[in-house]
Amino acid sequence: MLKELGIEFEHVPVNFTDGSTHTPEFLKINPNGRVPAYESDGLCLFESLAINLYLARKHDSPLSPANLEEDALMTQWTHWVITEIEKPLLLAAANLILFDEDKRSLAELEIALKKLARPLGVLNQHLSERRYLVAERFTVADLNVSAVMTLARLAALDMSAWPNVDRWLEACLERPAAADWKVISFKIPRPETDLGVLAMFV
Amino acid sequence: MLKELGIEFEHVPVNFTDGSTHTPEFLKINPNGRVPAYESDGLCLFESLAINLYLARKHDSPLSPANLEEDALMTQWTHWVITEIEKPLLLAAANLILFDEDKRSLAELEIALKKLARPLGVLNQHLSERRYLVAERFTVADLNVSAVMTLARLAALDMSAWPNVDRWLEACLERPAAADWKVISFKIPRPETDLGVLAMFV
Repeated sequence: MLKELGIEFEHVPVNFTDGSTHTPEFLKINPNGRVPAYESDGLCLFESLAINLYLARKHDSPLSPANLEEDALMTQWTHWVITEIEKPLLLAAANLILFDEDKRSLAELEIALKKLARPLGVLNQHLSERRYLVAERFTVADLNVSAVMTLARLAALDMSAWPNVDRWLEACLERPAAADWKVISFKIPRPETDLGVLAMFV
Repeated sequence: MLKELGIEFEHVPVNFTDGSTHTPEFLKINPNGRVPAYESDGLCLFESLAINLYLARKHDSPLSPANLEEDALMTQWTHWVITEIEKPLLLAAANLILFDEDKRSLAELEIALKKLARPLGVLNQHLSERRYLVAERFTVADLNVSAVMTLARLAALDMSAWPNVDRWLEACLERPAAADWKVISFKIPRPETDLGVLAMFV
């Protein structure tokens, strides 16, 4: 979002696997001990998609809501992707690429894909009549929803059933400001028990 | 939120267990086939907490953000409750009251409580220095976070480890506009398999 807005910023990489997100200094910025966190002029924020919405509202640009109704729809789609897409997409990605190959479960993948089918169908239908989610231009709504859906690309999820989503996602992720996602690479160790898997994804 | 703002509205009850949320008429208002959905002057919105944020921004009141920084923090806490609290709290509630008594799992309850401990600790610490989440008054942030946490009360979740959260939640839920939650009563049939449980809560 900062790159889209052309705002200078300092990116401070913080490793969430070695305890760096749980130092007293970091917890002052984000008491949840998670990345990302944002700090500017004494304002500290957590929750990445909330940070993006704030930046869009603060810095007038084509990505910003032009009025309260646009803002409402951008907020709505942002909540929608957290509620409907994020966790099942992570479960699908875990069983496509993030777990070691011999630890993947076809049954869990099927559950995840079944859960994703309804919201992806809704998004596909929505995008059958428009190029972008809100107001016929690329906005913070597209940025937030596509940011979560980078996982679909990282996992090479078959999107052929949702061609409008596929086309829209390509348009979002091909923007110069979005290039960073292409170098993301990480693994998740599979929990040893089914309860552990439930604990990971709930 | 509409009651807090003193706005007249028509509440149209829609049963989500008998197909009423999947009629063509309802899907025009919310293509996801879920309640709640909001319609006013041609604007249709889904995602309950996004609707609340919109109403707070549209109708000036003590619950509304007074500036972009307050708005950012209200949005942040709203995302936080969806990301950190909603699903594990539902899993805890399922195994405390929503599943039939002989279908509850102590192991699942423990997982849920373990997952909730960190974010509830963060909230408890945050509320050790202030009465409300943002700006020292009851706002849409408190409304949204406490709305999700009604489940803790319905499930009689032991909150003694987080006394500040307990006190704050009581203050939020005792507001006259919030009385409706007390009559909520529903059961969730437990899925037959562990994979079914994962599918329900992911």
